[in-house]
Amino acid sequence: MSFELVVTDIPLLLPMTRADDLGARTDAAVAFADGRVAWVGPSADAPDADRRLDGAGCIGLPGLVDFHTHTVWAGSRADEFQRRLAGATYTEILEAGGGILSTVAATRATPVDGLAALAAARLRRMRARGVTTVEIKGGYGLSVAAEVALLTAAARAGATADVHVLPTFLGAHAVPAEHRGDRSAYVRQVVDRQLPACAPLAWAVDVYCDRGAFDLDESLEILTAGRDAGLRVRAHAEQVAYTGIAAAAAALGATCVDHLERLPASDVGALADHGTVAGLLPGAQLYLHDSAPPVAALREAGVRMAVGSDLNPGSSPVHDLWACATLACLLQGLTVPEALLGITAHAADALGCPDRGRLQVGSPGDLVLVRPPPGEPLHPAALVQQLGGIDVHTVVRSGRAPNGAQ
Amino acid sequence: MSFELVVTDIPLLLPMTRADDLGARTDAAVAFADGRVAWVGPSADAPDADRRLDGAGCIGLPGLVDFHTHTVWAGSRADEFQRRLAGATYTEILEAGGGILSTVAATRATPVDGLAALAAARLRRMRARGVTTVEIKGGYGLSVAAEVALLTAAARAGATADVHVLPTFLGAHAVPAEHRGDRSAYVRQVVDRQLPACAPLAWAVDVYCDRGAFDLDESLEILTAGRDAGLRVRAHAEQVAYTGIAAAAAALGATCVDHLERLPASDVGALADHGTVAGLLPGAQLYLHDSAPPVAALREAGVRMAVGSDLNPGSSPVHDLWACATLACLLQGLTVPEALLGITAHAADALGCPDRGRLQVGSPGDLVLVRPPPGEPLHPAALVQQLGGIDVHTVVRSGRAPNGAQ
Repeated sequence: MSFELVVTDIPLLLPMTRADDLGARTDAAVAFADGRVAWVGPSADAPDADRRLDGAGCIGLPGLVDFHTHTVWAGSRADEFQRRLAGATYTEILEAGGGILSTVAATRATPVDGLAALAAARLRRMRARGVTTVEIKGGYGLSVAAEVALLTAAARAGATADVHVLPTFLGAHAVPAEHRGDRSAYVRQVVDRQLPACAPLAWAVDVYCDRGAFDLDESLEILTAGRDAGLRVRAHAEQVAYTGIAAAAAALGATCVDHLERLPASDVGALADHGTVAGLLPGAQLYLHDSAPPVAALREAGVRMAVGSDLNPGSSPVHDLWACATLACLLQGLTVPEALLGITAHAADALGCPDRGRLQVGSPGDLVLVRPPPGEPLHPAALVQQLGGIDVHTVVRSGRAPNGAQ
Repeated sequence: MSFELVVTDIPLLLPMTRADDLGARTDAAVAFADGRVAWVGPSADAPDADRRLDGAGCIGLPGLVDFHTHTVWAGSRADEFQRRLAGATYTEILEAGGGILSTVAATRATPVDGLAALAAARLRRMRARGVTTVEIKGGYGLSVAAEVALLTAAARAGATADVHVLPTFLGAHAVPAEHRGDRSAYVRQVVDRQLPACAPLAWAVDVYCDRGAFDLDESLEILTAGRDAGLRVRAHAEQVAYTGIAAAAAALGATCVDHLERLPASDVGALADHGTVAGLLPGAQLYLHDSAPPVAALREAGVRMAVGSDLNPGSSPVHDLWACATLACLLQGLTVPEALLGITAHAADALGCPDRGRLQVGSPGDLVLVRPPPGEPLHPAALVQQLGGIDVHTVVRSGRAPNGAQ
């Protein structure tokens, strides 16, 4: 067999293939062929390859997976952040044109090339931190043409930044200004017009089911229509108010249900029964001063937990998925292995692509080599303890070493 | 006048010379001579200089100031972090040899060269984020020789990493194992033996006055002795339990009193009366799940607030001062201008060196050029809203451009 790249002498490799010890191997090597992982084993037995990278001093992991982002947007909410800290109420912000609909207005006013460029700039920062798979939702367009533009921009940005992007249709993110007071007409547009145009561009359908957004019946209608159009199902669930969407979406076959700050213990079993991943978004919890999801109950029930950035301009403007792993420990009570699985294997499960976020023969050729903070040991906990503390040394993407490698 | 460096075309310069608008200038330039700021004005009027840097696309600020760190230590507490998340109690951690005394043991076992190398590695990361002035405490030695070694290592690390370091004597950080049960004998050692040996190496004396550490009388004896030895005074104050140290240290002339989670409103006036800076440490609040200091009362009383990383291996393993500014907004309620002043001008005030943390003629020649996140405007709020979101483009230190500048 001919290998294009081999990374040798990795003192600690965490392939994320097991939940207990993360599949840890010491003194390991990984070889790549045809863009995929083709060999994993002891460094002493590493095969020859066209190129070789030295993993000395590093911990190796699969490319990170950010399973929940809103990376395509235009405009800024920084000024709104400043005004809220200075005492403005949310109502005052809305009356001054702020909030999500200000992002919708700015996004609609930006051509698809501009949206793609902005999203690509954000993806490049994420990739520099070791993230190679990113889910990106629409949802700041809220019209047929604008939602098509967002999904198109997401895909283009992924190609530009060399990140594997999974675009998600989220026409039901908010009710646009022109449909205020006539939500049912907007739901009809989402189902009858947006979905047929967007389904070919998306892998999944999502909905924001909550107080002030879409109710349970509307959400299930949209998710069912999406499923019938061939899309995977997922939902923003139980964030502000309890609606029952988490259990209902799980029963529909959702790959994940996300947020869950208001998930009651009685609904945890539905996630376990259907193999649905619990999507945790600690950045939103931090920015919204919210309470934590029921992590102990989820753990007890054997529900896998993914950890995402929820990158968006308002409630979670957080780029660094490593920082999210730390926040998931501090704010939500995840253990170190849970946090690391949450940004790799379990995040991939949340996306319904379990070959990602794991390093094993046949999986996509995405490997990151990271260094813990100064003086810290090569230990999984040293990747998470210090907020934003690790250095990303090398990102191998699709089996290709970065330029400059020997 | 001859200038060695000029930075031109800075679209937004925030010299931090005023509290309301941060002294903001548009289309500005800064020129340097003899390692200091020698000219600030409109870019159109910028003088010639030996070298020129282009500030296009950036916001310019004075080099950041981290006013409270414990940057010199050896050993790791990452495993302790993992065990606590997995359910171990603090008592179990201590019985297993964890906690601050494990850091003391590892630090004592490391030669001064090793301590300096570890601290320099940490300082380089801080400098890469735009921090050019760092206060570093001893306090993990807890003997005459070991505290001398820590302060020596702090100074060497500053020289190696090219960061302006202010070492602080903190012999009264904890009671070492060999004095357990005889704290008064340790206080005598601190005052009679450590202080005379350490005072020539330090700019200030600090004490950890709290339940489980040193009481108010002991703390005031140590601070008074330090003051009499020519050191500035500061204190860890009102963090775990109220002791009264904040007001008492202010009356002694403390430049700052830090933590303040338990500061009662009735003691805020003492800080205002004595011009003492309130030192806020949001990283420790995050990691210890603590409540916020009384920021509204401090603001109302006109007390300046500094924001520090509190970088240490246990309760605040946070390297990025920009992230601390964001956390100060989110967790403590600071406004955007307060957070930016907190990591610049007011942090310098906390160190008793008001020429730092500000960009004006005569101040040290430390300037950072930063870029807000993709798509964000050149606006102060865009520096703080997104957690760890900014890019540091250029760090000018002591009037010298980095290598590679034209």
